Formats: sequence, structure tokens, C-alpha cells
Amino acid sequence: MKIDLPTKTIQRLTLYHSILRDYIFKEVPSISSQQIASLLKIDDSQVRKDITFCHVQGKTKIGYDVAELKKAIEKLLGFEKSKDVFIVGAGNLGLALAKHDDFKDYGLDILALFDVDDDKVAQVINGKKIFHISKLNNLVNRMNVEIAILTVPHQVAQSVANQLVKSKIKYIWNFTPVVLDLPDNIKVCNENLVGNFLNFTKN
Amino acid sequence: MKIDLPTKTIQRLTLYHSILRDYIFKEVPSISSQQIASLLKIDDSQVRKDITFCHVQGKTKIGYDVAELKKAIEKLLGFEKSKDVFIVGAGNLGLALAKHDDFKDYGLDILALFDVDDDKVAQVINGKKIFHISKLNNLVNRMNVEIAILTVPHQVAQSVANQLVKSKIKYIWNFTPVVLDLPDNIKVCNENLVGNFLNFTKN
Repeated sequence: MKIDLPTKTIQRLTLYHSILRDYIFKEVPSISSQQIASLLKIDDSQVRKDITFCHVQGKTKIGYDVAELKKAIEKLLGFEKSKDVFIVGAGNLGLALAKHDDFKDYGLDILALFDVDDDKVAQVINGKKIFHISKLNNLVNRMNVEIAILTVPHQVAQSVANQLVKSKIKYIWNFTPVVLDLPDNIKVCNENLVGNFLNFTKN
Repeated sequence: MKIDLPTKTIQRLTLYHSILRDYIFKEVPSISSQQIASLLKIDDSQVRKDITFCHVQGKTKIGYDVAELKKAIEKLLGFEKSKDVFIVGAGNLGLALAKHDDFKDYGLDILALFDVDDDKVAQVINGKKIFHISKLNNLVNRMNVEIAILTVPHQVAQSVANQLVKSKIKYIWNFTPVVLDLPDNIKVCNENLVGNFLNFTKN
């Protein structure tokens, strides 16, 4: 990304992109800010403001060209510059993420999975091989991977995270319910599902 | 929840709760705001401010009583008042969420799963039965369930959501990458993984 977009703008732009993909699939050529706003139940002035970052002009009474706006969002958010990712923990959640084909369209390229279970090792999931976790540091170095998705059982989350810290991993996307104790040079994103649920259902 | 807490406060309080669970597991009796702040890499004045909502007093040089603070957060966030939930889509992600034992501690009680695959129907996952999706409306009514977790393939997300709308479901927690077109009386929470990833790795 060339400019430092606000967190919530990035969140909304990815949702606009999902809507545009659907419009392209349905062969609808144009979309208005009101249509986007209505699907997301937000204000259309917010949509127009977000789209100014894309430098795309809409036409009165027609709206935005779907393909043009989609490409502009992809350029703005850097989807074409792929980031390599390892999944650590090949349980149900790890496998679900590995099978999530959409990620690649958004510049998130899952290269391989790691697990301690010898029965899983060497299996290939959606084109991605599962390696034994003892191979992790070696492959992080050889493949120059900086991002790990952590989907191990919560009992071992901290110890596996400690192992990641010793490798060249710089970003840990934490899907476990454990708050990890990590040095300041590691960036963590806690996927806080419980917090989302509580916010969502509070009213 | 008795008071309307800000979204980010709820997010942080659930993370403090995870830390407190870990402290209880390790039999550490007290915790300071600095210790919590350091784990989450946030300011300790923020932690103290959030904890004022819990009406728990810390002691100078000792900190908060771990068990007392944990209970106060549970009361504040309403963990004891369980909310019943159905999972719609028993693929890898649906199964991973069904196996997520922590949810019940946070007042999220998954009662059953639904799928179209006859091979999956009647299986029991972590004590939760998989029903054919044709049974959904009937069971929503009989069991008075208002919350659905949507984990179906993206190709059928909208059509399954339409079916949920016809039942008494009021909340859809959408784990698919599709922006759903839904009436205003349905509350949706989009689990926007791509947006989180882009924000997390933008620097």
C-alpha cells in the first residue's frame, strides 16, 4: 500500500471488493455507492469517501464501472504483491484456512502447513504439503517466509509461538484463544472470535 | 450486559479474560495492569480504564486479584447467560468451530450443526449432532435459536442465508467471504479475515 489507509477503511474496501466480485460473476457492469451501502447497512457518503482513495470516478445515475473499481481496489490494497504464509497446526481450522481458495486472490499465498502428527505429515491439502513441525525453522529460512498462521491447540500455543520466534517469522496471525507472550519485534494479530461474538450479539 | 460498553473495550476485556484464565491455570494469584498491558503491547492506563467498568480495586505493588477480576469480567460481559447457536455448514471450518470448547465458557453454546451432505448427517461432533439442512427451520422454531454461524461454501452462502431469513434466525455470524444481501431486521457480523490480514501485515 502506498498510502497509510485507516484500519476501518481497509476492512470496508475488502468488503466492497467482495461485492464487486459478485457483480462481475453476475455480469452486472455498474454499481452505485447506494447499492454498496445498502448491502453493508452503512451510509453511502462513507462509501463515496472510501472510494476517493481509489481515484475512480462514478457517473451520475449510473455509478461506478464494476471492473474498473475492482481493479483500483486491488491496486490500492496491493493484492497483486503476494505475501507468503505458513500455517502452523493442521487441525480442522488450519485445514479450513488451507482450503480457502479466495485468500490467493487477496495476496495471501499459503505455501505449506506444519503439524506434529506423523499421520498428517506428507499429505497434500489443496496443493499445499504438510511438513513435520521440526522442519519449520529450516523452511522459514529457505523460503524466506515471515508470516505464520497459528492454529495449534491452545495447550501448546505458547510453546509453538516460542519456536516461531526463534525462526525468522515476523508476523503471527493468532487463531488460538491464548494471549501469547512475545518479544516486541514480533507483530501479532489476535483473531478474537469471542470478542466479535459478544459485540455482535450484545443488543 | 447492563451497560453499553464500547466495541473495543469488549474486545480488550475478552483478551484480559484469556490472560486471567492462563494465570489461574499457572496458579498465579495476582496480576498488575502493567503485566496485562505488556502482553497485549498496549498502554497500562488503557487497561486500568477498562477495568474500572468491572468495579474491582487493585492493590498497590500487588495488582488485581486474578480470580476476582476474572469473575467480574464474566459478570460484566454476561458469560453466564448462555446464547444458543446453530452452525450451518459442517465443513472444516464449521467442524473446527464446533470443536472449539472455549466458546461455552464465553456464553456461546453451539447446540447442533446442519449440512446437505447425507454422509455427515447424524454424526455427532463434540457432543453436537449434525442434522440435514431441511430440518433447520423446524429446529430453529422448536429450540428458539436466534443465532446462526454461517460456514457454507461461498457459492451457496446467499441461498442458505435466504433460508435462514425465512426462519426465526435474527443474527448471522458470516464466516463466508460473501457480502450477504439481507433484510434490515437481520443482524450480520462479517468475519472479514482478508481485511484483518491486510491491516495486520500492511507495515
